[in-house]
Formats: sequence, structure tokens, C-alpha cells
Amino acid sequence: MPGSVGELGEDGLVRSVLSRYASADGVLVGPGDDAAVLEVTGRLVVSTDTLVEGRDFRRDWSSGHDVGVKTAAQNFADVAAMGARPLAIVVSLAAPAELAADWVTALADGLQEESRRAGAAVVGGDISEAMEIVVTGTALGVLEAASPVLRSGARPGDVVALAGRTGPSAAGLAALLAFESQAGEPPPGVDLELVRAHLAPRPHYEAGASAARGGASALIDTSDGLLRDAARIAEASDVVLDLDPQALTPEPDLVEAAAALGTPQAAVSWVLAGGEDHALLACFPAGRALPEGFRPIGRVLPRGDAAAVVLVGGRPWAGPTGYRHFG
Amino acid sequence: MPGSVGELGEDGLVRSVLSRYASADGVLVGPGDDAAVLEVTGRLVVSTDTLVEGRDFRRDWSSGHDVGVKTAAQNFADVAAMGARPLAIVVSLAAPAELAADWVTALADGLQEESRRAGAAVVGGDISEAMEIVVTGTALGVLEAASPVLRSGARPGDVVALAGRTGPSAAGLAALLAFESQAGEPPPGVDLELVRAHLAPRPHYEAGASAARGGASALIDTSDGLLRDAARIAEASDVVLDLDPQALTPEPDLVEAAAALGTPQAAVSWVLAGGEDHALLACFPAGRALPEGFRPIGRVLPRGDAAAVVLVGGRPWAGPTGYRHFG
Repeated sequence: MPGSVGELGEDGLVRSVLSRYASADGVLVGPGDDAAVLEVTGRLVVSTDTLVEGRDFRRDWSSGHDVGVKTAAQNFADVAAMGARPLAIVVSLAAPAELAADWVTALADGLQEESRRAGAAVVGGDISEAMEIVVTGTALGVLEAASPVLRSGARPGDVVALAGRTGPSAAGLAALLAFESQAGEPPPGVDLELVRAHLAPRPHYEAGASAARGGASALIDTSDGLLRDAARIAEASDVVLDLDPQALTPEPDLVEAAAALGTPQAAVSWVLAGGEDHALLACFPAGRALPEGFRPIGRVLPRGDAAAVVLVGGRPWAGPTGYRHFG
Repeated sequence: MPGSVGELGEDGLVRSVLSRYASADGVLVGPGDDAAVLEVTGRLVVSTDTLVEGRDFRRDWSSGHDVGVKTAAQNFADVAAMGARPLAIVVSLAAPAELAADWVTALADGLQEESRRAGAAVVGGDISEAMEIVVTGTALGVLEAASPVLRSGARPGDVVALAGRTGPSAAGLAALLAFESQAGEPPPGVDLELVRAHLAPRPHYEAGASAARGGASALIDTSDGLLRDAARIAEASDVVLDLDPQALTPEPDLVEAAAALGTPQAAVSWVLAGGEDHALLACFPAGRALPEGFRPIGRVLPRGDAAAVVLVGGRPWAGPTGYRHFG
């Protein structure tokens, strides 16, 4: 599609975007009226998350399609982190009139593709003019378990478990920053999949509902880094999470990328403190079989007089602890 | 609360904002975990709408509280326009680190106040850093009627009816633009309520569910102006809406404001083309008693070979026809 958002105009742009979205079961009214209408059987889970150009993505690195995938991924990961199944998403785009209309339709394609992978539908949105690109998704999910899995349910003796990996997104970001290269051009010695993991994460959403069915006592997605998100469970549950350093040994691709970038010690930091992987961190009562996809990475201790709420091999971690907006 | 968003930091700001939100019936998990959890009985309605500083509001005119009210109002009006009852809202804020933290807590107070007035709860949100303020609300509602009221159901012979007024918001904006005055200082001869209607609209949400119960064939909220939103019903329903100029005579406050601003002919344009009033425009089968709050303003004609899909007194309207993003 030629031209800019401003040249195409709101109506033309909306028509083109809406043509990207497939209908789905349970969607009684899709995009195009004042609001969408959905059939919901069970409790509803809702979460919202925003991506801002230059902070959450760079247009010289990420295609519109990548940003669409990332918007869906971040939002549906939060839904999964309650133990729910993704159902639908609405997305608001604020963008300069000069933005290429093609970028917006690629965004819609990425949203549609990742929503379908999550088992969900894009059911609505909004387009506004702004100085920079701001994309806000709001994801809905359905809770099929009796109760949501909160951050506050971990108990001493529980096993700490992880579904998915932590570290790839931070490694990919480090590679992009170090090489300032174009996305799609692998920096030498860095697996391109790490860069893709940063630009367009593909979380294992189904692990959320599996954790709920499997009796998880606490659940969170690692959007801000393993240590920081583990601390959120620990604080909400008034316990200590002691992570096993053996279980968190960086995989070869991370070790190789860190070496290629000349920062071999970074691989451990990526695993422990790197954000935006959207792995699922859960606690399960001891002796319970872990659901498929989860592997044990630590245990829950009583709060007592521990020096910190998250320990690594029994000791506080002294390295970086994750990303924080506004310092 | 002293200081800026950046000085307070994300965690402090989130804590302060969350303390503003009251819990409500049907909210099983409120803000603070990965996602909120709601009990939904009936079909779910969802809509999203964004306000951008300098385009949808000006900080020298609108307080944070006003923008909170407006965010809730715009979003819940879309939910009401499906015939649904407002249930909950999530709100994402992108803002410069220099923004006063007080402005953000006032935004939260405005959101809470108007959500309560709508019978709904604020159940979640997100805060990001950005160059300018962008506020995105996503509203959820519950449909208690058998079916949503779409734009596409109007039939020839139906009565066109309106709940709420059109024009006050445009009049208030014209007054603010003409006088470039501070909000709260009424321009001479202009009723301050018109300025308030622009800065912090207070729609009649309950008219949406009333319209559904009362058998409305089509429903929309007048966010972009009566003529433009009437055209949306007409196009979706493949009919013509003929509005009665007698029923759309500007009220005295609009006439006086137009005179005070030196543009007496503007009053009619405000009523027909002014946006952001969030009145509810409906069609009802002829002979049916209109629900409380609705008054007849026209009738539905067959499409035939009419010169336009919306007529005023049987003729196309030659004046301005409403606000459009991106020209």
C-alpha cells in the first residue's frame, strides 16, 4: 500500500487494517461497530500493555510486523500469567501522519498472526495522530480453572519452575546495540534467533493454563527479568525464592553470543536479569508432577531473616536486577 | 504529591495511582497482579479509545482529573452504544518523565469518579515513558439484552431518536479557542457548563441499555458529530436518515454562546456537526414508546435515489460535517 497514514486518511487506513483480521469462534461482533461483542464462558482476565517507539522498539530494527507480534505477545503473556487462555485483543495506535501506511498494515498482520498463534482474535482498535508511535494492546482471556493463579500464593517448600527461557531477548538486544546492525543481518557469532526473540517474542501461552490445571500456587511472566519478577512473587507471598544456579546455567547460544560481543560474563546476567522473554515463572507444591514445559529452577523458603527475597544458590545476587521504567 | 513522574519512579507512581481505585462487585482480582479477573454474566462488550495531548486535550485547559473523566466517558459511551452496561476499564498512560506526579494522580481520580458514575470499576493499567501524553482506555461492558444493538439494523419507517444533547462540547471548544482562556474562567456570555461539557463530558450511559431493552434497531454514540454518526447508521443499514430541523433547533445556551462569540450561525453547526458529546443516537420501530431519555429527531427513509444518506428537513446539509482524524 503506497503513501503515508496522512495521505491515506483515517477511513482508508481503518478499512485496510480491518481486512487483516480474521473472525474467530466466540466473536459475535468483530471490529467496525462502536465495540466488539464476545461470548465469554468462565471468568474474564484483562490486561493492558503499551509499546513506545524509541523505548520499547526502534523502527530501524523492528518491522511493523515485529511490533504487531510483540504487542500481542506482551499482552497475551500477562493473560497466560493468570492461568488463563487468550481470547481476544484490542489495539490502539497513535502515530505521526508521516508514517508509511504499509507499516501500519504490517503491524495489523503481525497482530493477527501472533493472536492466531495464541488462539485469540483481534476484535477492535483505534487510530490517532501523535508525535511518535505508541501502541497499546488490551488482551482478554478466559479462566477455565476454578481460580486465577496470583503472585501471592507461593508457600515454603514449593518448587520454583520455569516454562520457556530467560535471556534470549536481552542477548538479542545486546547484539543489536553492539552492532547497530539492521534486523535480519546476524551479527557475527550471534544466533539470529536471539535477535528475533528480542524483536518478536513468541511466548508459550498454553503453559499458563497448564500451570493452573497443574495446581500452581503462584505465577508471573518474566517481562522485567527473572530476578525482578521472582521478587514480585516473593514479596506478594511473603516468602523467599532460592534459585538454583545450576538450573540457570546459560545455554550455548547465550554463551557464544556473549563471547562474540566481547562480554563473556553477560550471559549469566541475561538469564537472571534480562527482560521481555515472557517465560512463565511458577511455584508448585512439592511432590507434584510439573506440567509439560516446566522445569524446576529453585525452591521456596520461609521469609525468616533472609538477606533478600530472592537468592541464587542461597545468596543475594549482586549483579543487575532488571529493567525499570522511569529509572 | 510533590515532584515529577520521573522523580517519583514507576513503582511509587503505580502505588499512588492504585490507591485511588475502589473495588467493585464482580471484580475478583483488581489492579496489581499480571491481569485483572472479572465475573462476567452475559455477553462481553469491549472498546478502546485514545486521547493524545495537544489533539484531544490541552493541558492548559484540562486538568488531569478532566482527562481522566474524558477517557472514561469516551470509552464507556462506546460500550453503551452497543446497548450494554459499563463493567470495567483499564487505562494505559504514556507520559514524559517531567510530567507532575500530581497530574497523574488527578487523572486516576477522574477515571475513578467517572467510572463509578458509569457503574464500573478501574481494574488495571500501565505506565510508560513517552515524548507526549497518550492515554488509552479500554472499556468492558455486559450486554443484558439478547443481542447487541448494531449500526446496521435501522429500517425505513423507524423513528430516529436522541438521548442527550449535541452541540455543547463544540460550543465549549469554540469558546476556549476564541478566548484562549483558562478552564474555570467562563468567557463572557458563554455558560461555563458548555466549557465543562467539552473538557469533561458526562454521558447518559444508562440510555444505552434502555435503548436495547426498548427495542432499538440501531444505536451509535455521537462522538464525531450528529451528521457523521447518523451517516454511519445510514450506510451500515442501507437507509437514509432524515432529521427534523425543528427538533434540532439550538437551545438558548448555544444560541447565546454563539452570539457572544460573534458567530451566531455557529449554533446550528455545533448541534449538527459538533463532536465529542457522546449523546446516543438510536432508531426505533415506529409506534413503539421511546425509552425514557430519548426524544424523536427524525425518521428513517428507504435508500432509493436520495441525494445523500443523511438529510435535514429532506435536503442534504451543506455545512460542516464533523471531525476527522488525519484530515
